[in-house]
Amino acid sequence: MKLKIALLEGDGIGPEVVAQAVKCLQAVEETFNHQFSYENALIGAAAIDKKGTPLPNDTLGLCKKSDAILFGAIGSPKYDDDPDTQVRPEQGLLRLREELGLFANIRPVKVFPTLIDRSPLKKEIINTTDFIIYRELTGGIYFGEKKLSDDGSVASDLCEYSEKEINRITHLAFKAAKTRRKKLTLVDKANVLESSRLWRRVVAKVGESYPEVMLDFLFVDNAAMQIVLNPSQFDVILTENLFGDILSDESSVIGGSIGLLPSASIGSEYAMFEPIHGSYPQAEGKDIANPIACIFSAAMLLEHFGLKEESKAVIRAVNKSLKNNFVTPDLNKKSKYGTNHVGDFIAGNIVDAD
Amino acid sequence: MKLKIALLEGDGIGPEVVAQAVKCLQAVEETFNHQFSYENALIGAAAIDKKGTPLPNDTLGLCKKSDAILFGAIGSPKYDDDPDTQVRPEQGLLRLREELGLFANIRPVKVFPTLIDRSPLKKEIINTTDFIIYRELTGGIYFGEKKLSDDGSVASDLCEYSEKEINRITHLAFKAAKTRRKKLTLVDKANVLESSRLWRRVVAKVGESYPEVMLDFLFVDNAAMQIVLNPSQFDVILTENLFGDILSDESSVIGGSIGLLPSASIGSEYAMFEPIHGSYPQAEGKDIANPIACIFSAAMLLEHFGLKEESKAVIRAVNKSLKNNFVTPDLNKKSKYGTNHVGDFIAGNIVDAD
Ligand SMILES: [Mg+2]
Ligand SMILES: [Mg+2]
Repeated sequence: MKLKIALLEGDGIGPEVVAQAVKCLQAVEETFNHQFSYENALIGAAAIDKKGTPLPNDTLGLCKKSDAILFGAIGSPKYDDDPDTQVRPEQGLLRLREELGLFANIRPVKVFPTLIDRSPLKKEIINTTDFIIYRELTGGIYFGEKKLSDDGSVASDLCEYSEKEINRITHLAFKAAKTRRKKLTLVDKANVLESSRLWRRVVAKVGESYPEVMLDFLFVDNAAMQIVLNPSQFDVILTENLFGDILSDESSVIGGSIGLLPSASIGSEYAMFEPIHGSYPQAEGKDIANPIACIFSAAMLLEHFGLKEESKAVIRAVNKSLKNNFVTPDLNKKSKYGTNHVGDFIAGNIVDAD
Repeated sequence: MKLKIALLEGDGIGPEVVAQAVKCLQAVEETFNHQFSYENALIGAAAIDKKGTPLPNDTLGLCKKSDAILFGAIGSPKYDDDPDTQVRPEQGLLRLREELGLFANIRPVKVFPTLIDRSPLKKEIINTTDFIIYRELTGGIYFGEKKLSDDGSVASDLCEYSEKEINRITHLAFKAAKTRRKKLTLVDKANVLESSRLWRRVVAKVGESYPEVMLDFLFVDNAAMQIVLNPSQFDVILTENLFGDILSDESSVIGGSIGLLPSASIGSEYAMFEPIHGSYPQAEGKDIANPIACIFSAAMLLEHFGLKEESKAVIRAVNKSLKNNFVTPDLNKKSKYGTNHVGDFIAGNIVDAD
């Protein structure tokens, strides 16, 4: 397969971890006979520094002519800690998502056997957890009309959803459930919210086209409990923007390895893959950043294009590095392996799979 | 002190657990020389059965002329499982909160040393957890304008807050923090929501009157993470209605003893105290219901009226029952002690404190 991949390394440890993910993608090319091409563009603080804007036009142009985007991280203390700054690095990412119509944020939540002791939850609770959250990313209360009364004493935000917005992400979530354990849980607050009732109606209707998938419903307050009490009950969770923000962040910590988690943001034309960790500026350039989340993001990219064996090969190679304790210092204080070494080890194990 | 206490036993195990809490209040009267009077009134399914409405007028009248309300539980399969029913038991509780202007829901989250093994979280994480959530209960998106387009394809809910609504609960929360570890955390989403920005401004301003209390701010998605990662960092959490619903339910399970947690709903004129567990109809009349959450609710009632020693005496007596394994079967499968026995034991230990 030929794929044009835009590399948006961004800030902080972004460039270092993207470099390791590219090594792994190149190992996949070699092993499975594909041809991927890579092109870099600026985003975030790096783009403000050089071009005065967090999302330069040529970056957006590159993304639009690419098949996929691999994203590093965004954010820099230079701008984040300056209250007077008008342009913020994060604006680049928000505008990019909007311009590319990336309406679905996908976050897998998985436990790594070798890291299970790092979980805040007891082993027997988290043991078999493996679910994925489909969060609507471009609608709901974050984007609804905001009002502040003239005297500043009353403020409001509107949570609005249309059938169309719900439809498109619901199909993605059902399709994912079909390839997994065939269970989809819609999280809403349909006992109170009109928008949640619309979600419930639309999802139930879409569900008729996926009779092999079991659909159930959970109120968001109960979902926040169940993620702690019994996270292994979930397969695919589908939810709106705000609920998805809260629940995916809650879920990201239950495995004890937030630094390892990838994500995808999908639209009808474009797809972007990125680690959920931030730019971690304190670690920049020190060769200590953990590249696994970005490498897993590359694995999600491969799976997105139907390259299942390839994606599995990457995941197997990562698991081997975890099992052999060939990891960066964040996972093992005594480790002498840096970002580059770990990247090389994983890429090498994609080529030389047992 | 003289107190008129309205007893709203409600449905399921409500009457049984309220009876044990009353035993404890009577033990407090005796030990500390107070005079409490008790009067019962119907609510919920019990009220529908006998009066055709989940909140009869004389129940509301009794509540309005009482100093405090002790509430059992509400809900019955007879009505909950009937999709055609027009009146639901829960409506009684919702209307009561509204009629009495109970704008603050208060939920303590505490770990009981003897029950720590029941927590889904690791012992070292939950060990010293002791915080309290102040949730705004009558505003925000649950009560804002709801719209559905004529063709049913677009739905919306409005989240609106006024300075006044925020002010009154903020004062309660700061006052609580003053008597505790002097830390208040406002949970909001001020980076995105206009209503959250109003919360932040109002709370910061009110905070100037409580210079001894440290105020910090946390985004709701981060809060959902921190409650799992490091719940012991919190003292008082203050938040709006929806966020409070989600976070208080998430928090209720981290201690492993959701059946033991009390709550209070406070307004400027009235105060109601209730266990957070439901009516548990399967256990009704079997003398197996755990009365501790309702007894703790009575302890909150005492504290609300400044009866601190009295409240502590109740809590001490409960802890003694936990320590001696004098508990209902939910906490110890082999236990032969029923609801009544446990209530007697705890009440007896208030009178005969060591
Ligand atoms: Mg978030
Ligand atoms: Mg709730």
